[in-house]
This record gives sequence, C-alpha cells and structure tokens, in this order.
Amino acid sequence: MKKKEVMVLEDLLGSNKKIAGDIRKKLSEKGILAINLLSSPGAGKTSLLEKLSEVLTPGYKMAVIEGDIETERDAERIRAKGIQAWQISTGGACHLDAKMVGKVFSEIPTDLDFLFIENVGNLVCPASFDLGESLRCVLLSIPEGDDKPKKYPKAFFTSDALIISKTDLLDKMPFNVNRAVQESLDVNPKLKAFKISSVDGTGIKEFVDYLVKNLNKLRRANA
Amino acid sequence: MKKKEVMVLEDLLGSNKKIAGDIRKKLSEKGILAINLLSSPGAGKTSLLEKLSEVLTPGYKMAVIEGDIETERDAERIRAKGIQAWQISTGGACHLDAKMVGKVFSEIPTDLDFLFIENVGNLVCPASFDLGESLRCVLLSIPEGDDKPKKYPKAFFTSDALIISKTDLLDKMPFNVNRAVQESLDVNPKLKAFKISSVDGTGIKEFVDYLVKNLNKLRRANA
Repeated sequence: MKKKEVMVLEDLLGSNKKIAGDIRKKLSEKGILAINLLSSPGAGKTSLLEKLSEVLTPGYKMAVIEGDIETERDAERIRAKGIQAWQISTGGACHLDAKMVGKVFSEIPTDLDFLFIENVGNLVCPASFDLGESLRCVLLSIPEGDDKPKKYPKAFFTSDALIISKTDLLDKMPFNVNRAVQESLDVNPKLKAFKISSVDGTGIKEFVDYLVKNLNKLRRANA
Repeated sequence: MKKKEVMVLEDLLGSNKKIAGDIRKKLSEKGILAINLLSSPGAGKTSLLEKLSEVLTPGYKMAVIEGDIETERDAERIRAKGIQAWQISTGGACHLDAKMVGKVFSEIPTDLDFLFIENVGNLVCPASFDLGESLRCVLLSIPEGDDKPKKYPKAFFTSDALIISKTDLLDKMPFNVNRAVQESLDVNPKLKAFKISSVDGTGIKEFVDYLVKNLNKLRRANA
C-alpha cells in the first residue's frame, strides 16, 4: 500500500474510533448494551435475532440496527417480530461504520436494554470498524467449515464471543466443533464460545444468560 | 466519502485495471482461460476446484491461484490433487488485486489450459477488482439462503456465470432455486446459471462444457 493510501486509511479509522467512543459512552450512560454481530453472508445473524426476540421479550426491550448493502429485507424480518428495527443501506460499502450508526442514534429509545447491530455479511472488513458496541460476537455456521478461524483471523481476534451457529446441521455435514473452537481460541484465548441453533433452540438460553450478565455488569459499572 | 478518499480509491482501481488488462492480454495470447471464482467464505470454491481437477485432467491442464488472508490451507488441498497451486496471502486485505496475481505470473506454465483464481471468501469487495480473468463466476451456496443476490448485487452484476452450489443440501433446508436464479438474472440478465454439487457431481459436466466452450472461443479469437 502506498503512503497516501495508508494515510487516508488511518484518517478513516481514527475518525471512526472517535465517533465509536462517543456512541459507546452515550449508550453506556443510558444503560443500553450494544452488541455488534459479525459473520459471512447467510451464517444466521437475522435468524438468531428472530429467535432472541422470542426469548428476550417481554422481559427485556430490544431493538436492531440492520446493515446491508442493499434492500430492507432483514429489517422487515425483525419488524415482523414486533421489534423496532432501522435498516442502514451502506450503498456498496462492505461494512458498517460508526458514523452510519450515529445517524439513527437520536431515534433509539432510552428505555432499551439491548441494541443489536447486525453488520453487513462479510467475515473480513467489519472487523476493522468499531461501532461503539460493548460486545462483539462473531458467528461461524456449520456449512462454512471448521477451517475458517485461522483463514479469517481478525473477526475472531477482535470479538468477545464466538457463536457456532446452525448446530442442527452437524449430523448432515462434516464439521469438527472442537477444532473450530480450539482454532478460535488459538487466535483469541479470551473468546467465550457458544453453540447455537435458531432452528431447534440449542444454546439460546446460555447466550441469553451471557447477554443479561453483560447488561447487568454495564449497569453496575454506571451505578 | 471525502474527496481525498474518492481520489485514492480511483487511483487504486485505475492502476488495478491497467495491470489486469496486461494480464488478460498475455494470458489470452498464450491461449489460457483464466477464471476468477467469487463467493462468501465456505460456499464451496475449493471443493469445486477439487472436483474439477478430477474431471478436467488429464485431458486438460489446469492450475490454481489461491487467495486467502492467512494460511496455505486451500493451496495444500489443491496440490494434494496433483495440481499446481500458488497461495497468495493478502496479509489482511479483503480481496485479491491484479498486482498480487501479477507476482506469480512468471511461474505460470505456458502450456496451461485453465488458470483458476480462487478469490478471498468475501461476497463484497472482490467484485470491484478485475484480476485479468476471462470469466468471472460467483458461487451462492444453498445454506446461505436464496435472498442474497439483491443484498450483495455487485458480485452478481459483474459475473459471467452464477453457480448455485451444494445442491445436495436442497432437501435439508429451505432454498428456492428459482427465486435465487431469477433474482440474479434481475441483477444481471446475461448470467449463465449452473446448479452444482461437488459432493454428488450434479452439474459438473455442464460447467466443464461451459469452460471448454469458452476456452475454444478464446483460442479461436487468437487464431
């Protein structure tokens, strides 16, 4: 990369970091836990959010920011569950950035518990952009194969939780869960691993407990 | 995007286009058909290449350039099939560019028929970078879902062929093949569609016929 390109990239990331920091501070003051979901296209991010909406509500209040290059499809799926959702169309860009998230910030209800941000389906670029989230979760679905963590390390390196998704497909194709988890931990030993299926409900309770624990931790820190 | 950012991006793409044009010209003169494979991570690009190596050789000579952010894994899988393969590690970058391909150019045998270039698993960014290929093929695998073409239009818009992959999974999950093909054609009416499975061999012959037809066309144009 040329010097000029490196400078532009550093400018971009520096400005993104500042906006993300502001978002994190404001959300944290409001007691809202923001979760940034990262994965390849079709790894089950929207299906997980649909499932979470059934389990989290009405006890907790959640909302969703949907990032996509084109279409309102994912936001429509979430709204059909009675959950408030904003669709951000990136217009070609391969990831959400903090500025895009900032644009819907004024519409976020202050009595929210969980703000999920579903990033553009891309296991590479979104990992470089802090959105002001408190938790970053990377999904790896069974059909993608267990060799992905070391091939796409940054998404795993920068995440707090690993979600092995679509575990209902485990008996239908080769995928070594222990290998995938171990490779992810090699990349990032602090990752908390979950095995979930939005089809049969496997692991959803454990993941919800993790979210609630982190929500309480955030609120205690602000008390 | 700021003016400075737009200028840097235009510089990058302009310089890439020039190198890609040189590569295409040289490969074409040698009578080598280059095929750029695009898809999400885990859509079955390497499995398709393994399967093609069984069908194309020994009648035709093929080689593979593997693009990955990290690891030699995919090149090792191809070499295990007795096929020459170069691994390009992008070192974090989310796509191959023509300059990277140019670096292995001097090692490409002149008696080759097919040069496959397996791009980084990413349904977004690789679509913006011409690698000097004669054919671009986008894979969409059954587990990813049939709603992807309009959500990630550029990969479909810039491709010559659509490969619906992993069709052996069609009876195990919801995926409307007609919808996926129709959406892809809405984005790009010139797409040639294939339905393949590297597990049970479905559609491999049709795809090989397409490759051979395009190889002959390239050679006739140079005769």
